[in-house]
Amino acid sequence: MKKQLDHIAILVKNTDEALKFYQETLGLEYKLSEIIEEVGVRLTHLDMGTIDLQLVEPLSDDHPLAEQLRERGEHLHHLCLKVDDVPTEMKSWPERGLSAKNPKPHRGPNGRAAAFIAPSSTRGVQWEITAAPK
Amino acid sequence: MKKQLDHIAILVKNTDEALKFYQETLGLEYKLSEIIEEVGVRLTHLDMGTIDLQLVEPLSDDHPLAEQLRERGEHLHHLCLKVDDVPTEMKSWPERGLSAKNPKPHRGPNGRAAAFIAPSSTRGVQWEITAAPK
Repeated sequence: MKKQLDHIAILVKNTDEALKFYQETLGLEYKLSEIIEEVGVRLTHLDMGTIDLQLVEPLSDDHPLAEQLRERGEHLHHLCLKVDDVPTEMKSWPERGLSAKNPKPHRGPNGRAAAFIAPSSTRGVQWEITAAPK
Repeated sequence: MKKQLDHIAILVKNTDEALKFYQETLGLEYKLSEIIEEVGVRLTHLDMGTIDLQLVEPLSDDHPLAEQLRERGEHLHHLCLKVDDVPTEMKSWPERGLSAKNPKPHRGPNGRAAAFIAPSSTRGVQWEITAAPK
């Protein structure tokens, strides 16, 4: 079974303004938008067939992602792989030379578990894993 | 018909070293590698099911992408949409508020035509289009 992406994330300053571009100009199809309080972000998904484009908007100016937006503007933020089970996958990381960004999974899109791999162990690119939809 | 991605590109310093990570550690499947002389890059594709992960390595130290690598290290570089025909799609850009990075298409992966949209017209994120494989 080939590894497959769940979504590609773009960090945005303002979801409504960004949606005008991604929906109207690029022609992508709106799928869902939700606030994840415990992570402090609004996540909005656009449907690109087998994968989603995810817009990530931090909900406060003191969020670490708001700092990244001030430094670099809107940009490609992370790639998220589908896995069967997030905790099982995380257990395989140390022997593969991968480190977890946080010790426990966080709440990802649509209530699914998710976890970030520390970019220091992935050659600088931010990768996430999330449970494949049932 | 939903808009679909052809590939996601990551800028890399050294393809062979990067492949060790993407193949052995992340477990992605190698597909092809080719030198595009006229663009001055080596492109390497990893198979992620319906889309590819593309590693882009500039072939000289004075390539503009080499400067980007010195500034930011390896990073997510662009997203590439599949289109039926690149010149036809480019003709639709001005009325949609999109600008071409270069006036003519360039040679993309596997001999297919490709063109970059100027990031100044895409909220900062680099998008490319390429002809869907026949």
